Amino acid sequence: MKKLKAPLYEALIRFRRNDPVSFHVPGHKNGAVWGDVVNNTFRELLSIDVTELDGLDDLHSPTGVIAEAQSLTAKFYKVKSSYFLVNGTTVGNLAMILATFNPGDRVIVQRNSHKSIMNALFLAKVKPVFVAPIYDSDIEGYSGVSFANIKKAIEKYPDCKGIVITNPNYYGLSVKLTSMIEYAHKYKISVLVDEAHGAHFSLGNPFPTSAILQGADIVVHSAHKTLPAMTMGSYLHFNSKLINEDKIKFFLSALQSSSPSYPIMASLDLARYYLEELSEVGYQNIISNHLEFISQLHEIPQLKIVESKMKESVTDPLKVIIQAKSKTSGYDLKKILEIVDIHPELADSRNVLLVLPLAELKNREIIIKKIRMAVSNLPIGEVGKEKLTVTYDPISEVNLTYEEMERYPKRIVNLKESIGRIVADDIIPYPPGIPLLMRGEIIKQSHINIITNLIKQGATFQGNEYTIQNKLTVFQL
Amino acid sequence: MKKLKAPLYEALIRFRRNDPVSFHVPGHKNGAVWGDVVNNTFRELLSIDVTELDGLDDLHSPTGVIAEAQSLTAKFYKVKSSYFLVNGTTVGNLAMILATFNPGDRVIVQRNSHKSIMNALFLAKVKPVFVAPIYDSDIEGYSGVSFANIKKAIEKYPDCKGIVITNPNYYGLSVKLTSMIEYAHKYKISVLVDEAHGAHFSLGNPFPTSAILQGADIVVHSAHKTLPAMTMGSYLHFNSKLINEDKIKFFLSALQSSSPSYPIMASLDLARYYLEELSEVGYQNIISNHLEFISQLHEIPQLKIVESKMKESVTDPLKVIIQAKSKTSGYDLKKILEIVDIHPELADSRNVLLVLPLAELKNREIIIKKIRMAVSNLPIGEVGKEKLTVTYDPISEVNLTYEEMERYPKRIVNLKESIGRIVADDIIPYPPGIPLLMRGEIIKQSHINIITNLIKQGATFQGNEYTIQNKLTVFQL
Repeated sequence: MKKLKAPLYEALIRFRRNDPVSFHVPGHKNGAVWGDVVNNTFRELLSIDVTELDGLDDLHSPTGVIAEAQSLTAKFYKVKSSYFLVNGTTVGNLAMILATFNPGDRVIVQRNSHKSIMNALFLAKVKPVFVAPIYDSDIEGYSGVSFANIKKAIEKYPDCKGIVITNPNYYGLSVKLTSMIEYAHKYKISVLVDEAHGAHFSLGNPFPTSAILQGADIVVHSAHKTLPAMTMGSYLHFNSKLINEDKIKFFLSALQSSSPSYPIMASLDLARYYLEELSEVGYQNIISNHLEFISQLHEIPQLKIVESKMKESVTDPLKVIIQAKSKTSGYDLKKILEIVDIHPELADSRNVLLVLPLAELKNREIIIKKIRMAVSNLPIGEVGKEKLTVTYDPISEVNLTYEEMERYPKRIVNLKESIGRIVADDIIPYPPGIPLLMRGEIIKQSHINIITNLIKQGATFQGNEYTIQNKLTVFQL
Repeated sequence: MKKLKAPLYEALIRFRRNDPVSFHVPGHKNGAVWGDVVNNTFRELLSIDVTELDGLDDLHSPTGVIAEAQSLTAKFYKVKSSYFLVNGTTVGNLAMILATFNPGDRVIVQRNSHKSIMNALFLAKVKPVFVAPIYDSDIEGYSGVSFANIKKAIEKYPDCKGIVITNPNYYGLSVKLTSMIEYAHKYKISVLVDEAHGAHFSLGNPFPTSAILQGADIVVHSAHKTLPAMTMGSYLHFNSKLINEDKIKFFLSALQSSSPSYPIMASLDLARYYLEELSEVGYQNIISNHLEFISQLHEIPQLKIVESKMKESVTDPLKVIIQAKSKTSGYDLKKILEIVDIHPELADSRNVLLVLPLAELKNREIIIKKIRMAVSNLPIGEVGKEKLTVTYDPISEVNLTYEEMERYPKRIVNLKESIGRIVADDIIPYPPGIPLLMRGEIIKQSHINIITNLIKQGATFQGNEYTIQNKLTVFQL
């Protein structure tokens, strides 16, 4: 590797070189206050867990090494400006929605968005219009939204101010956004993209195309998800002609700690450096290594590797979905792997998701051996029952404002009585974990049919114990 | 020390013992992805920078080791519940204000509150009434608010829903709140306290009394400021009969990363353990050690140790204010100390603030020698000119709602023309850094007199270049 070029990290390392005496916060005093019990774990890192000292700049008003580190990031990602986030993609999603929209604005939102998007809509008091994602029958799950449905939504709500997209999804499925973004921009509609799982997409082929290169106004990346940044380290990339950047700065500053973590910021500086290095020296060895790993997985008779064949989507090569070739559920398969200290990202009723490193897998042969061993007792044959599929309204609106929802009392009614009323809770059948009804939506006969069916098939409903008792909470208008 | 009892930290250490293989986020894969260049600093800590794996609980819905760690914290602080914050006291301040008040509610607020309080008032769209703090002529700065002024404010605005207090101030000055809180509770008025600098007050004498023991509804602590937690680690303590705790939970969940940092959470668990140990084995050695350090500082002829003599306030023994016995400003004194790698917390035109550790100071003799050396060339004699003092309206209201402030255009007018108009920016003379006018307040002749005087004496105005040109930005109604 060539000489390290990570201005913030380097400034921290220079700072600690002179054995500085701390009469400032944080209270661990460069780690000195801790006893030896915990020092082994924390010691080294605490020496750079400092505060806004001379020469170390200020995240909330950067002019020095943080400004430089952010500007190297913007240059790498080819955007107008990049912001280091120390409160995760959550704060990026909150800031982009609060900065872009005014209360009462109509906003088109992908239904299978992250909870932080839903919270942001509520805090911004906008009027969301939800658009359902495409069902992928290979993955047995939902991926992105189609341009056709977004276009329909814009035609139905020509006053809409923006579109909020989550792409790729958790399983690494990424849909093309170029036409949608071009179409939206023609009508001065902003496109905000939660690309949490795609911070490495800017490397290019064979990774899916980043929303940045497709013209999105704002893109948020969890640098901690696929790049080697510390947890809570994310980037917000600003590249818009429609949105007021000062408002982004205000909300990022208001919603993030006034004492941001230097280790997290330094890890963001280093993660950009790591990515830039890869883009220069190449990453073909990583891709080949992963392909070999996947072919070794293919050879394990008890496992099936699931791949999407949809033409609308590209799959991130860092995501591998496996299933048991038996009735064994995804949950059980995950537990079996954990016994041999192999820790997957997540499981659903069918799938187990593995997130591969953006590096060659170390000890690959040992890992394969462990997986083989773990699953060796699983039967091979009859697969589990079909996953429950749910039909979503392609376009659906909330019928009360968030202010009204806060004001109206709620009551519990039987499913039959609920038709035509407005639901007061998000009704999220699990699987697939995507809201069938969002609070504020009108309950229709078709929803009741789906709920009745799901209950019969044994589905659960996240955070809503009434639903399986054939009841729903509605607003009393 | 007795056996470590820090359930979250211990669970993390147990987890990494088996050399787990990570197919999950974060992307650094327990640190393995990093090259050796940066590994020395990050390696050990990254092994516990994990995600919500089996057995490691979930901050946003805790039932295991995080719940246990939080409940040990609540028990130590003697509150109903304690919440671990990974986005600093900032998010605690935002959540307590957003959860307690509705838009349009009238709220009494200490004028010298932290920026995060001001941002929270704006986000919550409340109607603030500002109450000025007491001037301390020894420190030449402002401390807390008096009960008398708060009482006057409640009498003037009997419809007010709550009081927001910042205590102690940055310099460690803490005023008694007991009578104020008792009085407020009689009228069902909630009292929210930003006690960022007082996480260690619960140790008891000689530290000031924590607002928790004085009956406050919610108290927020920066565990990273005086306890040995990592930066961004804070606690929110809930102890209210008036406030809906579910709303606190909602806002903390909505405003904090859905991937909270395990190292920060573990450091909060350990900080509570550290404090609990101190309260059991005693901390008299720390206090004596600090007193000896201070008496050694007293012996340095070029320095003066400044102490408040006000009966209304108690000073935190971890805070030491020094001045040069010469015209040398606080800013210059700080720079002189930094040359010998002694890093103070902050400086103003007169004072330099040192924050002592909640532990015996290591290498005290060397530190004293370094300070002696650094200041040896400073003259002794004539002190600098008096600090500028500013008179604040004891009680002052904003005359536009935050919604209106967002809507109305602004324009720049001469000071003379501005009287009777509503100011559109916070006018913050520096020193003392406390707003003379808050945006939304009416400009009076007395403000203009003070501003004219301040400009003559060479004051600056934070973030407002117009003021020194005898101009103010006002709303055009």
